[in-house]
Amino acid sequence: MILTVTLNTALDITYRVRSLRPHASHRVSEVTERPGGKGVNVARVLAALGHEVTVTGFTGGATGRVVRERLAAVPGVLDALVPVTGATRRTVAVVDERTGDTTQLNEPGPTITPSEWSAFQETYAALLPGVSAVALCGSLPPGVPVGAYAGLVRTARSHGVPVLLDTSGEPLRRGVAARPDIIKPNAEELAELTGSHDPLRATQDARRRGAAAVVASLGPQGLLAVTRDGRWQATPPAPARGNPTGAGDSAVAGLLSGLVEHLPWPTRLARAIALSAATVTAPAAGEFDRGAYEELLTRVTVAGEVSAA
Amino acid sequence: MILTVTLNTALDITYRVRSLRPHASHRVSEVTERPGGKGVNVARVLAALGHEVTVTGFTGGATGRVVRERLAAVPGVLDALVPVTGATRRTVAVVDERTGDTTQLNEPGPTITPSEWSAFQETYAALLPGVSAVALCGSLPPGVPVGAYAGLVRTARSHGVPVLLDTSGEPLRRGVAARPDIIKPNAEELAELTGSHDPLRATQDARRRGAAAVVASLGPQGLLAVTRDGRWQATPPAPARGNPTGAGDSAVAGLLSGLVEHLPWPTRLARAIALSAATVTAPAAGEFDRGAYEELLTRVTVAGEVSAA
Repeated sequence: MILTVTLNTALDITYRVRSLRPHASHRVSEVTERPGGKGVNVARVLAALGHEVTVTGFTGGATGRVVRERLAAVPGVLDALVPVTGATRRTVAVVDERTGDTTQLNEPGPTITPSEWSAFQETYAALLPGVSAVALCGSLPPGVPVGAYAGLVRTARSHGVPVLLDTSGEPLRRGVAARPDIIKPNAEELAELTGSHDPLRATQDARRRGAAAVVASLGPQGLLAVTRDGRWQATPPAPARGNPTGAGDSAVAGLLSGLVEHLPWPTRLARAIALSAATVTAPAAGEFDRGAYEELLTRVTVAGEVSAA
Repeated sequence: MILTVTLNTALDITYRVRSLRPHASHRVSEVTERPGGKGVNVARVLAALGHEVTVTGFTGGATGRVVRERLAAVPGVLDALVPVTGATRRTVAVVDERTGDTTQLNEPGPTITPSEWSAFQETYAALLPGVSAVALCGSLPPGVPVGAYAGLVRTARSHGVPVLLDTSGEPLRRGVAARPDIIKPNAEELAELTGSHDPLRATQDARRRGAAAVVASLGPQGLLAVTRDGRWQATPPAPARGNPTGAGDSAVAGLLSGLVEHLPWPTRLARAIALSAATVTAPAAGEFDRGAYEELLTRVTVAGEVSAA
């Protein structure tokens, strides 16, 4: 059982409109809804890869009820979300049919009370003994302390559970100091953390700050991983064209599944790249195309070197 | 008891963002939600004026539950909405904090099945014996026949209940032919109905098509009313500055309350103008400012002539 944590779950809504024009009124031609938040997306991909996954985090209000109803329909995903008084946030992606571009509107999320935060920490600690790995994903809702992920990393480590952290800003900075097993920043998050815009230098610096392995996602250049076993650059056969929503979450699912399957790093990275690219090219936002994934797996390039023992 | 019909109820969501830029990602700084759809807005204003109001129409899904919960908290408004399988639509108004402008995204609404439409017609007919006036408001959701309002006008007339129709396009064209007591088109709707862009000519033509009274809303020029009692032009003391959302619905509430109170037409028009302007200037979208309303009432100009008997 893998555990994913999404403190700021979401109801992800996608609108299609003919053409988005500020200050105009638009008739939405198509509405789709699905449970979201990074950890929820990671869980869905892990389940599709055949893993059993538990999702926890917060959920509340009418939007939270929809999130839970929809999650219950996903095979392989168990719901251990903690109820809160506030309403789960919505995210609205407005797709312009003419250009294919997406405009994103993200609600901030409900304010979490101190007692709700305590209830979550108890749930989390109670789940850890039964899990093989944990992913801590996404932004913090209002009310959750900025050091939240650092605490959750330490609790996982005290249970001997490997932990992947995928967040940004100050929660990432503090979380890294608590020594997670893997972090997966993008170039911007990495530069914010380290002050360096040189990917290799920044990745190495992030390891010195406490992360056992750093997997930097460099967009079309793929993934740069620096771990205690060595360092690798994994690149897709060609830049993927499509909707990048959820591509990073699919990469996290690839890394996490590879970790619990005890795969060597190059295989984990190839899986992460293939899942990520197969998510970009999938017709539905955030889903991955299984055929494309399996085909891409054979065509990812992984170059690197194993550390001297 | 006044009855308002909203076949396409909505959960109206307002987002405030720093500045709306297509293809960018936006953090929403403030989220507000309220039950919407024209008839619901009319009911809220009527209730604020001290009238008892029943709202009917369709409601469903998680969004519909929120609409009903919020409506239950409005004093003076009774909920006689008919449950449907599909989900009540959302409308999203994105307010740009820099310019004050609003970008509107309107979901189409749930598809109504033939049996749901029948259930509504039964509810409507059962409510009519207890009401003093009915307002039929807004667009038709998918699945409702385009002649729906024409049928609802006829049913109201057969019960001797005066009926105000506020819609547009083909539903308006057909509804007018069924001889409603009042229609309240704006200049664009009136031109679409009659083919004429001359307000007086178009208003007179709309009466010939079947409406006993036509109250054309001409934006800053106020209201032009042509009725069997005479014709009047009512104008606000100055153009109102602010958010025009709901101003037309407030005008409908003014006309309807004046009708059930048996007020003369000039008084009804003054009330409609004052409510409408006090809605534009109110800080919250769709609400009206009671102080501004009472002050404006004394300053509306109504010019016109009573028909020769």
